[in-house]
Amino acid sequence: MKLATLKNGSRDGRLVVVSKDLTCYCAADNIAPTLQAALDDWANIAPKLQALSLDVENQAAPCERFHEHDARSPLPRSYQWADGSAYINHVELVRKARGAEVPESFYSDPLMYQGGSDSFLAPRDPIPLGDVSWGCDMEGEVAVITDDVPMGVSEEAAADHIKLIMLVNDVSLRGLIPGELAKGFGFFQSKPSSAFSPVCVTPDELGEAWQDNVIFLPLMVDYNGEAFGRANAGVDATFSLAKLVSHAAKTRPLAAGAIIGSGTVSNQDESGGPGKPCNEGGLGYSCIAEIRMIETINHGAPKTSFMKQGDTVRIEMRDAENHSIFGAIEQEVVGV
Amino acid sequence: MKLATLKNGSRDGRLVVVSKDLTCYCAADNIAPTLQAALDDWANIAPKLQALSLDVENQAAPCERFHEHDARSPLPRSYQWADGSAYINHVELVRKARGAEVPESFYSDPLMYQGGSDSFLAPRDPIPLGDVSWGCDMEGEVAVITDDVPMGVSEEAAADHIKLIMLVNDVSLRGLIPGELAKGFGFFQSKPSSAFSPVCVTPDELGEAWQDNVIFLPLMVDYNGEAFGRANAGVDATFSLAKLVSHAAKTRPLAAGAIIGSGTVSNQDESGGPGKPCNEGGLGYSCIAEIRMIETINHGAPKTSFMKQGDTVRIEMRDAENHSIFGAIEQEVVGV
Repeated sequence: MKLATLKNGSRDGRLVVVSKDLTCYCAADNIAPTLQAALDDWANIAPKLQALSLDVENQAAPCERFHEHDARSPLPRSYQWADGSAYINHVELVRKARGAEVPESFYSDPLMYQGGSDSFLAPRDPIPLGDVSWGCDMEGEVAVITDDVPMGVSEEAAADHIKLIMLVNDVSLRGLIPGELAKGFGFFQSKPSSAFSPVCVTPDELGEAWQDNVIFLPLMVDYNGEAFGRANAGVDATFSLAKLVSHAAKTRPLAAGAIIGSGTVSNQDESGGPGKPCNEGGLGYSCIAEIRMIETINHGAPKTSFMKQGDTVRIEMRDAENHSIFGAIEQEVVGV
Repeated sequence: MKLATLKNGSRDGRLVVVSKDLTCYCAADNIAPTLQAALDDWANIAPKLQALSLDVENQAAPCERFHEHDARSPLPRSYQWADGSAYINHVELVRKARGAEVPESFYSDPLMYQGGSDSFLAPRDPIPLGDVSWGCDMEGEVAVITDDVPMGVSEEAAADHIKLIMLVNDVSLRGLIPGELAKGFGFFQSKPSSAFSPVCVTPDELGEAWQDNVIFLPLMVDYNGEAFGRANAGVDATFSLAKLVSHAAKTRPLAAGAIIGSGTVSNQDESGGPGKPCNEGGLGYSCIAEIRMIETINHGAPKTSFMKQGDTVRIEMRDAENHSIFGAIEQEVVGV
């Protein structure tokens, strides 16, 4: 099934079931008022939402037209947002651009940062930018939402706790990252509010594209209206999303509604080298930092600038029939 | 006024108003079901809670006996928990113990890490420890709860957004910190679930002890039944709690119910040197790591071990009349 949270003036929005083709929705707030409320009692609530989803497909429920711009992030605020770094190609490029090695442990022990989760942006909200020198960048990623996950869960058991899947734009302020990482406590000001796709879906909606807890489909990232990234989220994923959930729960439980992200989706070139841009026949990039690294590796310095007022990003994923699965994140940078 | 959240089998507990002497409470869930709900509409709800608080003091409301062990953390789960490091003495000791300098910027630009907020412990809950080699430690701190804070708020304006104050045990796994910090993304597994004091209070409850957005009272930390720390939370605070709120909101807003912590309370010795233990007439320490650093500085190696199964910590703050303000955090380490 596909779920969304519509704007209704409240902090957590209104839960709706969306048709598989994203054309219409049926209110679900008589089952659970919000997606968080549904996740808090998922074992009881999910079957009722599934039944409603079936009715929506069979046109047996009262539906209205679904507009993606009426949707908020599926969880407009959440209790947990942690972002991994499953695509080591991305990490390798960062390190290569500054002439450093990737530690051997990075191939078995996931990188993960604790994100802030109190003020997510809606998928069509502008990205507020205080200063262009902050180096605003998008990061196109996949994320999962879990139910309650016990402390110390194994990767295998973690897979069963993945209840919903969505896309994310993990907005990053590259200009603030070096200073924060030098302080040693990780990201804080350099990771402002993220935005998630208009719709989240249960794993079964992905069919055979959901294998081994990753999605074997291209993540389509457009920048200022042009194809920028087409990397396949199932390829070059060093860690599955279940592994990242297990990592997050090593020393504490995760509460229902926890969101765990994949990190920036990134594929190697066919030759095993750094990828080519989309307009040169490559799979491109899911963030600007990556093309800047490749420019640095190839030419000694980056050419592409980070985002400024008026720049736009679009992040979407389409199935084998070219139908949008999650709807599109579409955001424009605005100065504040 | 003083507020608490009582256990009632739900995820967010039940909001109650507690008498100033912590002996009795009156249910407040007819005003707002939970503390988060109250914070979501604080301007409207706070006056009603204040009126009920007055009735409780005047014995004009139906009260029941308040037991601290029935309380959960005031926000059993929250949307934001960020912890600063206001007491640079603590940072100076860490660095001195390993022969490193404190960067000049640390005296103007606060250290802050993004914490996880989905699974706080109750103030009398055991601390679950998976492995003694994880190096379990307490950190006694002060924390504030804000209403909605706009992005880019000044330190001065941030002060008005501090609505409630409480204590926190920011549990840390010292054995996991070096590995995580070496990876560069900050704390994650090394910062498991924290616990907060049974009661949170509005700033006016602190009287003259609340000055310049810090609390001028000793934080009483007992370890295994003995005085371990008596550092004054108003002394040697390089940054006020308002400054930390402003820092947290530089690049994004904070949502109502955001919790911002002070970092481990730590005082210099009268001589300006590293502090003496309580049993030698000093003010002691609010975490074990600090006494280990001083042992390292003085003797070349630490003597005191981190916490193991059965070890207990108690964190409390008392007013000038020796009355407990927030109730006590009392936790025992248990193996899991």
